[in-house]
Amino acid sequence: MSTLAIADLQTPALLLSRPRLDRNIARMKARMDGFAVSLRPHMKTVKSADVFRLALEGAAGVTVSTLAEAEYAAANGVKNILYAVGMAPAKLQRAAALAGESVNLIVTVDSVDAARAVAQAGLAAVIEIDSDDHRAGVKPKSEDAREIGRALGGSFRGVMTHAGGSYDCRSVADIRAMAERERRAVVDTAAMLAEAGTASQIVSVGSTPTATFGERFDGVTEARPGVYMFMDLVMAGLGVCSLDDIAISVLASIIGHQRDKNWLLVDAGWMALSRDRGTAGHAVDYGYGAVCDEAGSPLEDFIVLSANQEHGIITRRSGGPIDFSAFPIGRMLRILPNHACATAAQFSAYEVLGDDETLTARWPRINGW
Amino acid sequence: MSTLAIADLQTPALLLSRPRLDRNIARMKARMDGFAVSLRPHMKTVKSADVFRLALEGAAGVTVSTLAEAEYAAANGVKNILYAVGMAPAKLQRAAALAGESVNLIVTVDSVDAARAVAQAGLAAVIEIDSDDHRAGVKPKSEDAREIGRALGGSFRGVMTHAGGSYDCRSVADIRAMAERERRAVVDTAAMLAEAGTASQIVSVGSTPTATFGERFDGVTEARPGVYMFMDLVMAGLGVCSLDDIAISVLASIIGHQRDKNWLLVDAGWMALSRDRGTAGHAVDYGYGAVCDEAGSPLEDFIVLSANQEHGIITRRSGGPIDFSAFPIGRMLRILPNHACATAAQFSAYEVLGDDETLTARWPRINGW
Repeated sequence: MSTLAIADLQTPALLLSRPRLDRNIARMKARMDGFAVSLRPHMKTVKSADVFRLALEGAAGVTVSTLAEAEYAAANGVKNILYAVGMAPAKLQRAAALAGESVNLIVTVDSVDAARAVAQAGLAAVIEIDSDDHRAGVKPKSEDAREIGRALGGSFRGVMTHAGGSYDCRSVADIRAMAERERRAVVDTAAMLAEAGTASQIVSVGSTPTATFGERFDGVTEARPGVYMFMDLVMAGLGVCSLDDIAISVLASIIGHQRDKNWLLVDAGWMALSRDRGTAGHAVDYGYGAVCDEAGSPLEDFIVLSANQEHGIITRRSGGPIDFSAFPIGRMLRILPNHACATAAQFSAYEVLGDDETLTARWPRINGW
Repeated sequence: MSTLAIADLQTPALLLSRPRLDRNIARMKARMDGFAVSLRPHMKTVKSADVFRLALEGAAGVTVSTLAEAEYAAANGVKNILYAVGMAPAKLQRAAALAGESVNLIVTVDSVDAARAVAQAGLAAVIEIDSDDHRAGVKPKSEDAREIGRALGGSFRGVMTHAGGSYDCRSVADIRAMAERERRAVVDTAAMLAEAGTASQIVSVGSTPTATFGERFDGVTEARPGVYMFMDLVMAGLGVCSLDDIAISVLASIIGHQRDKNWLLVDAGWMALSRDRGTAGHAVDYGYGAVCDEAGSPLEDFIVLSANQEHGIITRRSGGPIDFSAFPIGRMLRILPNHACATAAQFSAYEVLGDDETLTARWPRINGW
């Protein structure tokens, strides 16, 4: 593998910079260590044992969004797994089979009906708290939380929340406020349940923006960020990282010129980049991605304007003329993604780059449910 | 397999109605037969030999958007393959290897540089004509087309265009006009090249909207629609089909209720539905999909309002209150997709439903490049 060069890859391909990955993992771990909070990295972004094993030193386990991820993590030796999505009752049997294999599998519930089904299946669970009016969960310190705790009985392990609303924040101050709201949602609910005699082993928060900027984690036992390992343009737009921190990119080849339109066509369309337009509402809208040269240096002002299934259309945001002689057919470019979770999901493997941008490995990843 | 019921599937799953598929295929074939135009179905949507073999009766071959599709089609016995995207020079060797296996592989070029590389690799090619200012291709009847024809020499096979702009039309009259523009682009260019002594064997158009509504196909040898086999909400919005024609849907389970927000949560998020928001600009915006009951009947007024990675949020467009007692946790629903190509790509197989909605088969599909 070490003799294969980037230029030998068939495009589109998904590149992963090992130095950036290592740096991102170390930075988040150091931050959480400073608060004496364990990480439980969310593997929904990376879906690769080769990646998540790098983030497991001192971790509480992993977080997953699908049973396929849970089974894959268990097959790769992970013993502590939090399934952070409400589970359809039809999946409880499959989950119980996994938990039976000496895996500490904890599922998530936000209704009495789900809690009863989970308890009956003999599974452990945390109660999901809605800290941001964003999707699932019961209200903090609510009677609903109390009732679900009672329905869980011996299956109760604690409380969790996800401040996905932090993705919609437009300033670091807003993210800090969201982080505190996220913390209070679970800490206050855990305190309420403890007063009623039910102690929480797990008090779990988690999103990359709130883990990056939160100022207090008192009472929290673990954080579940996921995208921090790769970072992306949405995180850069939130101030969570810089472009130089983004560890994955899509390698593409120039396949055409439309000179009168000032367009370069590349062979990475939405099938490779995903349809995610996460920077659409940001101060800097990158279209379908930010364009870098073949060595990974950003070509400032170049963005993926639009995407068809297998065509990406690159232009300059400023409207300035492209020097087409510098971009011959066949030249390779790298595209930084809006949303790492969505873009990585379009691929079955990472082409891993080492220190001097040499290809060092090919790491498979899973998809599906 | 025949003893497995829909209720036994793990969600999310991708359902494919065989009766609808058969009807869609027959309808398009009958229409093109009426114009004495061959079909060359585009497999970028279906990516499954089990599906595309149903569309190959009397067809000129298949159209593909990736070399992986071409190799898969060839492995499944298809001998005539048109690769309808400009090809990176680094892929020409792989394409030539495939063509060497007694496959009539035709690639697509829109520059002199690409034409020279293709001719040097010994591959056959058509010239892409830009009929809609949408992405690739040279202008109809242009000097560029003449020069590319000369550069191709003995590799020249004809001309092709794709009126992707038809997806942005807002009336049937507009689509008809686009179809005629598409036809003229290739027919007029072929005539110009013929005057110079270069006859086109292939004069190829193709998009599902223009193939559905075009009124003239004189001079056209083949049409390359793809999404017509499945149809989707974008096609329904264009008047190309009705909701009852949409052959694929995502089966999802209800995993939560947010009563005060009037939301049902299901376990199909954008990972299953894709991030495609193709109906966003339509008269009827379905959000991330139109909701049907477990038997496939549309629940009018119910749409997927938003999507997280593994959560879909369903509400009523009218704002009317949801009767939550009718939607218990665990109930299954089906979601019709905005864009069949994007949604199907999130799955590795189709769960095929026969005449009376019974599961009859599981058909694998490919992804990747």
